[in-house]
Amino acid sequence: MDPSRRKFIEKTSLAAAGLGLSNHLLARQNPRLKDVNGKLKIGIIGSGFRGQSHIDLILRRKDCEVTCIAEPDPIMLASTKKLFDDAKKRMPKIYDEGPHDYIELLSKEKIDAVIIATPWKWHVPMAVAAMKTGVYTGIEVSGGISLDECWELVDTAEQTGIPLYFLENVCFRRDVMAVLNMVKQELFGELIHLECGYQHDLRGVKFNDGISAYNSGVEFGDKGFSEAKWRTWHSVYRNGDLYPTHGIGPVAEWINLNRGNRMETIVSMASKSRGLHEYIVNHPKGGKDHPNAFIEFKLGDKVTSIIKCKKGETIVLHHDTNLPRPYSLGFRVQGTKGLWMDVNKSIYIEGTSPAHGWEDAQAYLDQYDDAEWKSHAGDAEGAGHGGMDWFLMDSFVKCRLENKPPKFDVYDAASWMSITPLSEASIAGGGTPQAFPDFTRGKWKEKK
Amino acid sequence: MDPSRRKFIEKTSLAAAGLGLSNHLLARQNPRLKDVNGKLKIGIIGSGFRGQSHIDLILRRKDCEVTCIAEPDPIMLASTKKLFDDAKKRMPKIYDEGPHDYIELLSKEKIDAVIIATPWKWHVPMAVAAMKTGVYTGIEVSGGISLDECWELVDTAEQTGIPLYFLENVCFRRDVMAVLNMVKQELFGELIHLECGYQHDLRGVKFNDGISAYNSGVEFGDKGFSEAKWRTWHSVYRNGDLYPTHGIGPVAEWINLNRGNRMETIVSMASKSRGLHEYIVNHPKGGKDHPNAFIEFKLGDKVTSIIKCKKGETIVLHHDTNLPRPYSLGFRVQGTKGLWMDVNKSIYIEGTSPAHGWEDAQAYLDQYDDAEWKSHAGDAEGAGHGGMDWFLMDSFVKCRLENKPPKFDVYDAASWMSITPLSEASIAGGGTPQAFPDFTRGKWKEKK
Repeated sequence: MDPSRRKFIEKTSLAAAGLGLSNHLLARQNPRLKDVNGKLKIGIIGSGFRGQSHIDLILRRKDCEVTCIAEPDPIMLASTKKLFDDAKKRMPKIYDEGPHDYIELLSKEKIDAVIIATPWKWHVPMAVAAMKTGVYTGIEVSGGISLDECWELVDTAEQTGIPLYFLENVCFRRDVMAVLNMVKQELFGELIHLECGYQHDLRGVKFNDGISAYNSGVEFGDKGFSEAKWRTWHSVYRNGDLYPTHGIGPVAEWINLNRGNRMETIVSMASKSRGLHEYIVNHPKGGKDHPNAFIEFKLGDKVTSIIKCKKGETIVLHHDTNLPRPYSLGFRVQGTKGLWMDVNKSIYIEGTSPAHGWEDAQAYLDQYDDAEWKSHAGDAEGAGHGGMDWFLMDSFVKCRLENKPPKFDVYDAASWMSITPLSEASIAGGGTPQAFPDFTRGKWKEKK
Repeated sequence: MDPSRRKFIEKTSLAAAGLGLSNHLLARQNPRLKDVNGKLKIGIIGSGFRGQSHIDLILRRKDCEVTCIAEPDPIMLASTKKLFDDAKKRMPKIYDEGPHDYIELLSKEKIDAVIIATPWKWHVPMAVAAMKTGVYTGIEVSGGISLDECWELVDTAEQTGIPLYFLENVCFRRDVMAVLNMVKQELFGELIHLECGYQHDLRGVKFNDGISAYNSGVEFGDKGFSEAKWRTWHSVYRNGDLYPTHGIGPVAEWINLNRGNRMETIVSMASKSRGLHEYIVNHPKGGKDHPNAFIEFKLGDKVTSIIKCKKGETIVLHHDTNLPRPYSLGFRVQGTKGLWMDVNKSIYIEGTSPAHGWEDAQAYLDQYDDAEWKSHAGDAEGAGHGGMDWFLMDSFVKCRLENKPPKFDVYDAASWMSITPLSEASIAGGGTPQAFPDFTRGKWKEKK
């Protein structure tokens, strides 16, 4: 490691420990995070399909550039390089010597920011390493592997004073942001109950033919390609809400989690597991004698959790990725004056809507459309996931350029990710309630 | 009590205890439940609005008649009598000397069946008394007051051998029955996850002006009228799923509860309570100084439960009666091949529906429309709750006339009702899982 970086880490650790300064104060005073000269230099750790989507967004921007990439997979690297060729941009420095070569990248490269888009188990070790080298760190979303790991993320951020940006894109979905405006203007009154989740038929993602990523076969692990290489193992060995943040992120904004409110307790239950097995058995490339037909998948097809918050709200969280179904994040925002649900695209506001009747939500979504979306819908066009990824990247880049705290910080990351190990523990205990650690160590009470 | 009835009870108790005969066997062999001579003579205990709705249905039928009524409230009795005058039918014998006069009715009247439609806390004592006098007993739906009470219902039915019919009308809803046909024909494959509940803005029912029943004021208890007289107290003193059966009844049929399957564990959480207080404060007849504005309502505005079943299914159960919202029982039936949801009136069946897209459910509901509904839609027209009450009454009457076991029996009643005290215990314990008693004492394994 660059000796000056090591020195910096020691210094900031001392400062954090000795003075108890908050992460944000440290970030603002951090000499390593002063104004960027010229374009924001971004390193990419993991340029699989998700990393490439980030790179594509960066290539479209004038205020940042990708200067280095760590990615061990030659196939992914080839399609990554093509992005730069197609855009006629300078090829970044490539670190491709195995999965640990990101350490070299972090030690050698002078970068202003790093984006980590790797298999889930790598997120925390990589983010910890990145923060320790003094680089503003963005990590892709995932559930946590363990509570210890969530704490490690927090401890490292606090010790280094380096801001961590948790890259939850759904918080930038157009309806989600419009509903946030409705919530702020108290259209729903005081919020009482929320629902959300990840209901996405991933069978054709968890399995493929090892060559093309989607809906092409029943292989996974070493014989799989892209996410099937690694994501599927979580369905083999774990039973819990494996991917909670697309749901909980928007809810967190609506009810101010870690900003005057927090999640206190969770209970989870899982149904039996049938979907993945049946997918293998019924697939033309599978069958009852295919080796994967003998694998027992631990993940229940439908995992449901209920979370109770400090301010008295309840949240229902769905996880449903093994069965045939249309995509739905299943949002519901319900307060003392009415509610919105996304599954029926409807809203009801007492005194405004016809008594006991739903209204189409679209007129409300238009009326409360976020100013950012109004201004930048053109820029976002063609960006991933209906444009919301453009806003995510814009926020990630600008927080660094303007030296502002991340929109979703290390406490959000740790608490949202902790849902996964907590739900696993609850299910393993037959639905026993699990207490959320207070990753903010009390700071949630003051933070706005 | 009529001495011959007392003797009968002793006899059947001995038979049940000594030979371990099932309720159904006893019912079939029960000399008191042999073929009815002429019309089925029905006694009504409780002729409030719900009881009157039952009477109205009986008055329209040729195979049964109301011969006696127990109802202490002179206002309800007046509107009850008007039903008979309007129908030009013979006035039944009236028992109106206080709330215990139903005992007189049961002891004196020669009836073939009794329907109990009274405030919740009376259901079990009245049903127990009715079964002990040897009368085929129908009870209106409610949540249970305690587990002991649920057991008392079961014990009495087993000891007396008298069949109890639990009058859950939603099981006869046209879409619910069509979906049952879909389930039986395995349209959804193996069922994995169910949702249901009672989401009904009851603020204008829990409070009124003491004169007209709905949306007329903020009074309850002694100053209220109809349900506001008694139902509201449950919201003052209890925090749980107070009214689970409209949701769980249909689900029970879909996944064969008590017939090869059973509910094993429940966890429940409740949100804060705001809705009822705000209703009083904001009502033109209420205000912040109204005496009821100082009452603390224990019932959380949104109570959510998750139930795990023996066969591995999960059930999410909603209870949501204190907030402004459109009515919804929130059904979801999800299996290995697809799902139906009633909130968006949509269905998805793998291989039939467009990939990842919802279809309007109506074509399916028409295709799988129940034969009973097809034949009797005309009869049901104008009957309560969109016609389903006609089918309920038809089933209740015919089970007795044809000496068949009740469609929903004492084990269904006890297990469905037990959700209420179990959810209260779970919430009181911070979401601790509660085990369902096996009210069938193992008979769920054999019963079809």
